[in-house]
Amino acid sequence: MSVVVVGSVAYDGIETPHGSVDRILGGACTYISLASSYFAKTSIVAVVGDDFAKEDEEFLRSRGIGLEGLERVPGKTFFWSGVYSNDMNDRTTTRTDLNVFAGFDPKLPASYRAAPYLILGNIQPALQRSVREQMNGLRLAGGDTMNYWIKDYREELLGTIRSWDFLLINDSEARMLSGENNLKRAAAKILGMGPHTLVIKRGEYGAILFHRDAHFIVPGYLLEEVFDPTGAGDCFAGGFIGYLAGRGLDLADGKLDDAELRRAVIYGSVMGSFCCENFGVDRFRTLTRQEIDARYSEFQDCTGF
Amino acid sequence: MSVVVVGSVAYDGIETPHGSVDRILGGACTYISLASSYFAKTSIVAVVGDDFAKEDEEFLRSRGIGLEGLERVPGKTFFWSGVYSNDMNDRTTTRTDLNVFAGFDPKLPASYRAAPYLILGNIQPALQRSVREQMNGLRLAGGDTMNYWIKDYREELLGTIRSWDFLLINDSEARMLSGENNLKRAAAKILGMGPHTLVIKRGEYGAILFHRDAHFIVPGYLLEEVFDPTGAGDCFAGGFIGYLAGRGLDLADGKLDDAELRRAVIYGSVMGSFCCENFGVDRFRTLTRQEIDARYSEFQDCTGF
Repeated sequence: MSVVVVGSVAYDGIETPHGSVDRILGGACTYISLASSYFAKTSIVAVVGDDFAKEDEEFLRSRGIGLEGLERVPGKTFFWSGVYSNDMNDRTTTRTDLNVFAGFDPKLPASYRAAPYLILGNIQPALQRSVREQMNGLRLAGGDTMNYWIKDYREELLGTIRSWDFLLINDSEARMLSGENNLKRAAAKILGMGPHTLVIKRGEYGAILFHRDAHFIVPGYLLEEVFDPTGAGDCFAGGFIGYLAGRGLDLADGKLDDAELRRAVIYGSVMGSFCCENFGVDRFRTLTRQEIDARYSEFQDCTGF
Repeated sequence: MSVVVVGSVAYDGIETPHGSVDRILGGACTYISLASSYFAKTSIVAVVGDDFAKEDEEFLRSRGIGLEGLERVPGKTFFWSGVYSNDMNDRTTTRTDLNVFAGFDPKLPASYRAAPYLILGNIQPALQRSVREQMNGLRLAGGDTMNYWIKDYREELLGTIRSWDFLLINDSEARMLSGENNLKRAAAKILGMGPHTLVIKRGEYGAILFHRDAHFIVPGYLLEEVFDPTGAGDCFAGGFIGYLAGRGLDLADGKLDDAELRRAVIYGSVMGSFCCENFGVDRFRTLTRQEIDARYSEFQDCTGF
């Protein structure tokens, strides 16, 4: 069943110890939708400028991604660039040009409104909320946020996530949102804010799923070479929502299958790991569902006891 | 079957955000042997000064730990103190008085020489080697080291670990020893140095077991409160060797049961997690085997998919 993804479509300049690219397709919405597209019909809501390349649009279309909600406006597409440290655990942003993204006001095409799955990339909480309210047949809705909104838009954010089923954030964001350093305590507080499901992403160290009184911890997949970690967290989110949507699962009514949620977290980890194997979105030009399932099995082999 | 543990017995001064203690029983040999004692008969080789308290000796004895190799010499016992950062991921050493430990020359009692399991805590590699050579019926031998020996005693260390079955080190040590930043590549290099089994400890993020061409990744147990992480890595080592010894396993002849090694890593993680629940060794004053097995099951529950 189909997934709607809302967020940024951008061009990125990336420098890692393995090389650099001046301008490559990026943005949270792009990564989430590419990862999700392997599991379920996926459509996007985003804005780009008139410089958005035909071949990038074609690439998204080739993955079956619905582009009716991809708005084109005069001006330039959002541009971000950054440089990774030698061990790739830190990155420094060298440029952020919001361009047309500064005026992003997500408009849902009528054909999207009945979609059962919604994932909201990291944008202003009020915009996330307005999209959520335009949908009318949701089985499962949630998304991401970041330190900036947690710190300076706290009330707006709390009002937004109150109606979410799941929240996907990283460990430092979970600490900031909850005011608790310990992740178990942080999760308990965040689950009191609305979402019944919380996934805390820990980068190379994996992720933790919290749902009601239980949790599931998964280590990160061990890559022999991390080529470029840009977008890995968003690909995690895309694999997570895509898997649940592909299975037609309904979390909203409380009939949650914990085993399926755990599988969704593993598929999220798998998609995040593939993302790191090449620059930007390039790994998704060749990745197949067969490779994804093989890595899922490998995950079982190297974590089971 | 019985385990011999060689290393430091010390007094520690510890300050964490939860409080402080001026002087509490510590040292790698102490933590390793306490953790191992829950699984197998464990005996130590260490040196203390004439200030070593009767009640600390009695505590070790109460856990069934063999103390024939605990040498007492005139002078003071090794003393270390440190202060943990607020998130407890960093600590600053405020004092290191080697005292009688400066002249430590491990002497194996005759009754220890035929023990099948040997674990060498972090001491000078030449001393580790001399102990290894005094043993005559080993099924499994290995140990720990640290950055200081890797950097300044590299050849001596390489000559020592060449005959080890397993090496247990943390991630930064693995990177330094191998010269590789990526842990999978680092492990491949280290397994070329002698040991057929490598465990890389990652603190709160768990551990990775490498053995020949396979690896096993385990996340850290999620504690609600990390009271004091001192000794957690050594308790991991004690749980690991203790479990293998308790099962009577023989890794030296290559007939390795991968499933048992994985269980040993989980028991190591379990013992490390308990260690953090109270100051210094205090958690082991009340911990029972039943609690250990319950946490092992909990580990299965929160990592299986």
